[in-house]
Amino acid sequence: MTAPQNLSFAVLGTGALGGFYGGLLARSGHEVHFLVRSDYDYIKQHGLQVDTPLGDFHLNTVNVYSRPEEMPPVDCVLVCWKSTVELASPQTLAQALNQLCRQGNSFALVLQNGLDVESTAANILGAKRVMGGCCFLCSNKIGPGHIQHLDYGRIAFGEYSMDFRGQVTERMKTVSSAFESAQIPNTPAQDLRTARWKKLVWNIPFNGLSVALQADTRQLLNDPHTTYLVEALMGEVQHAASMCGIHVEDEHVQRMLTDTRAMVPYDSSMLLDFRAGRPIEVEAIFGNPLRAALAAGFTPTRIEMLYQQLCFLDRQNLSS
Amino acid sequence: MTAPQNLSFAVLGTGALGGFYGGLLARSGHEVHFLVRSDYDYIKQHGLQVDTPLGDFHLNTVNVYSRPEEMPPVDCVLVCWKSTVELASPQTLAQALNQLCRQGNSFALVLQNGLDVESTAANILGAKRVMGGCCFLCSNKIGPGHIQHLDYGRIAFGEYSMDFRGQVTERMKTVSSAFESAQIPNTPAQDLRTARWKKLVWNIPFNGLSVALQADTRQLLNDPHTTYLVEALMGEVQHAASMCGIHVEDEHVQRMLTDTRAMVPYDSSMLLDFRAGRPIEVEAIFGNPLRAALAAGFTPTRIEMLYQQLCFLDRQNLSS
Repeated sequence: MTAPQNLSFAVLGTGALGGFYGGLLARSGHEVHFLVRSDYDYIKQHGLQVDTPLGDFHLNTVNVYSRPEEMPPVDCVLVCWKSTVELASPQTLAQALNQLCRQGNSFALVLQNGLDVESTAANILGAKRVMGGCCFLCSNKIGPGHIQHLDYGRIAFGEYSMDFRGQVTERMKTVSSAFESAQIPNTPAQDLRTARWKKLVWNIPFNGLSVALQADTRQLLNDPHTTYLVEALMGEVQHAASMCGIHVEDEHVQRMLTDTRAMVPYDSSMLLDFRAGRPIEVEAIFGNPLRAALAAGFTPTRIEMLYQQLCFLDRQNLSS
Repeated sequence: MTAPQNLSFAVLGTGALGGFYGGLLARSGHEVHFLVRSDYDYIKQHGLQVDTPLGDFHLNTVNVYSRPEEMPPVDCVLVCWKSTVELASPQTLAQALNQLCRQGNSFALVLQNGLDVESTAANILGAKRVMGGCCFLCSNKIGPGHIQHLDYGRIAFGEYSMDFRGQVTERMKTVSSAFESAQIPNTPAQDLRTARWKKLVWNIPFNGLSVALQADTRQLLNDPHTTYLVEALMGEVQHAASMCGIHVEDEHVQRMLTDTRAMVPYDSSMLLDFRAGRPIEVEAIFGNPLRAALAAGFTPTRIEMLYQQLCFLDRQNLSS
């Protein structure tokens, strides 16, 4: 659980998420190694551009790799692939983590959306070498090696192993310091699962209904029928969490509604993916919580129905 | 409950439904008076054209009216307006029925989709002077005074008043004879509500999901997630009916699935309305059964969710 004070990082997936956080860490002087798929040649030649309200910046020289076996061992691997990306298969992740985490105290921090997205990394490294984080980030990749950060950016992260539940470990403090030094707002969470379920309170209604109904957040909250549905879905997430032993306070649910009402109209990231013809993260965000609830003896009927609708829409979208 | 052997008819709404059935009745020699909205001038001048696998026909001279107060009294008023048409407001219906049903033994036969669509007519004429019917018809209006009948056409109809429950009344036999003579396949139903709930077993999943997911019947039944949803929705309709005192046999539910699988891929009438930018019959087909189930102490969660989604989509569709 200890880690060197000046952490080195590998970033798996240099898109809207990995490009932004990795870029901030590299700019602040951390050693960062990026695994890059489609933009490898471009970034190798031109570097990485990040547009952000924090102050645009450009990294001229970036440590980029197209294959994990060429990368050096690091302290912390940030898993930033979307769960739907083919590269994020268990085989590829195993290859990458075994290469990058050769040092005994190295670990992975899984920044994917959804529930239980750390399990693959935990199977490879062991649960005690895995952390997970929820990113509250509004960011897009708008061109090769070009990230546009729009708003937010906080990472709520914690230990995956139940052995560390209720603790802010030394390793978490080290990660938090690294994030602080890189201007990444962050919240070390004593319980990762609580953080994940709390994020689902927003993601399940707004990501799901935005795709099912092709609507932005304001449209959903300006109509009494969909407002009812948003609240009912939030209630199901809260109850599912409770059945899984996770307490989500009523105040959190209310705050998600109030905050979303106060936001500018917002197309969810899932809707953006859907409209761009990309796969949507239906298993990580809907399938996994649904299965967790069912295993705990609760059938969240609306979540289940939304899951089924999204599975259908995703399939139609990808085959069209 | 008695009616003259050679019934005279008025048809309210000369579209895909009223134009087809009214046309068949007129062709067979019945006195039929059509109330026509947009196509009045056209039909007055050119008559009514019906294309049908039964044999295309043209009626040169048609009794058309643009206002109910010009129409003569008749034995039977066929209410063929869609429930969403503004003309079908209680005020207009009252004006029409009071004019057309001046004779003491005249009555209305409401051929609208959904549940409890007879209640407005019953408030005007009294329940004992109202019948209702479910039409299994695949028909479109493809131009002014031009109806294209594609397939099917059976009418399952019965008395609205609970006093006649379990009976095939003399009046029903007279209507059935008139339909027979006009080549309209029909089934006098001892219990109208059972017929209506049985039709909802199909309409709720297929009309609803076709609009919510923009899909035809084959797409819905070719995907395991939507097949599950179709079956779950059918089960909710069956249970809601049961809570309202209506028995729908398992065999009926199974037959709806089997028959739909055997059909050619089919865009539901609700999907056609939606795509054409017309209002969809969400209250008659979803809202009324939902409220009936809730009043009986059962919350059909999936029907409720689909209702809320359709309300939202209908509103967005009409405002765009």
